[in-house]
Amino acid sequence: MIPKKPTSFDPTARTTIKRSATRGIYDRVAIDAILDEALVCHIGFVDDGQPVVIPTIHVRIGDNVYIHGSHASRMIKRLLSGDPACLTVTLVDGLVLARSVFHHSMNYRSVVVFAKGFDVPDMNQKRDISHALTDHVVPGRWFEARQPSDKELAATAFVGLPLDECSAKARTGPPIDDQEDYQLDVWAGVIPMTLSAGKPIDDDKLQTVIVTPEYVSQYKRT
Amino acid sequence: MIPKKPTSFDPTARTTIKRSATRGIYDRVAIDAILDEALVCHIGFVDDGQPVVIPTIHVRIGDNVYIHGSHASRMIKRLLSGDPACLTVTLVDGLVLARSVFHHSMNYRSVVVFAKGFDVPDMNQKRDISHALTDHVVPGRWFEARQPSDKELAATAFVGLPLDECSAKARTGPPIDDQEDYQLDVWAGVIPMTLSAGKPIDDDKLQTVIVTPEYVSQYKRT
Repeated sequence: MIPKKPTSFDPTARTTIKRSATRGIYDRVAIDAILDEALVCHIGFVDDGQPVVIPTIHVRIGDNVYIHGSHASRMIKRLLSGDPACLTVTLVDGLVLARSVFHHSMNYRSVVVFAKGFDVPDMNQKRDISHALTDHVVPGRWFEARQPSDKELAATAFVGLPLDECSAKARTGPPIDDQEDYQLDVWAGVIPMTLSAGKPIDDDKLQTVIVTPEYVSQYKRT
Repeated sequence: MIPKKPTSFDPTARTTIKRSATRGIYDRVAIDAILDEALVCHIGFVDDGQPVVIPTIHVRIGDNVYIHGSHASRMIKRLLSGDPACLTVTLVDGLVLARSVFHHSMNYRSVVVFAKGFDVPDMNQKRDISHALTDHVVPGRWFEARQPSDKELAATAFVGLPLDECSAKARTGPPIDDQEDYQLDVWAGVIPMTLSAGKPIDDDKLQTVIVTPEYVSQYKRT
């Protein structure tokens, strides 16, 4: 799991942040943390000239991000075609209310990865990714649930996307207003936002009295 | 604001949900509700053969979704080029823990819109979209904050994407396990997830004692 890649990226022409350039991040630790916190990513691919953006679950292992799906899925087929793809994750951290509408903003962290997908046909590797994917969403779940059979793994396609060309962008902190607006009698500040867990809902078909595990009842994303 | 379009869409070859087809939704009321709840969308466009996916704020007004940005933004320029684009929103509603890893899933609602962007040069229309965008994120904010000047509106590009070709997909409810797994001694159920607001943070530069407005202190996304 030790990254083989440099700890920061030299931005390429395509990953250099141009809009709000001071928000650009090329540090590998920061990029990994954003990928690891996000529950879903958005995959961009091109199908017959039409860009398509589809949400899916991902997991980072070392220097690759993996997604999975049915072999029959259009997204999986396009990713395995060797065409360029894009993987984006976005964490919404807060609503930034400035005194002027124009300076309203959002605190967020996002990562954009440009990559071509590669197939993972090896069953042991599929099992490892399945493990990582499960524990990425719910840490501790893999060793409690019934693990996948070879048939189930065979029915699932796993696609890797290497973290070779990527960048992050983030905004943090309070609103920034025009100097003359600071005197206005308008509340300004940040409403923090978090993807938070509610009370777990037992499946109606739990046949015995099964105690809700702590990794479920105490679930937190961060 | 009355939709001119039919209340449901005939799925096109491109918007017909093929994977988990029973999750497909073409009903306009359901599609609008998802677009209206989501704080961010992900825009897909193609730049020199590379699909690019960028998060941004959107608002639906009637039969169009609008985004905004700098005239110099690559995304804005690509959307105004007339090339096909994709706008996707995703709401994460819950983590679905089945007894088997294979049947783990996520409860979610998502919308995918295929469209070509159109420019909104008219200043009055820009003002209306700015109003809707502000109140989409924080209802009630427009009439309290300092509204945009003509100069600020002129500096901002607004792009519309018509809701002509779109579909939604959703999963709800408990896990669905294989029959023989229901007897396993494994907790199963759903962890509900919500994007929720924390305690508002006053800007350090609030110069007078300004009471936090109720639309801020009571902020809820749904």
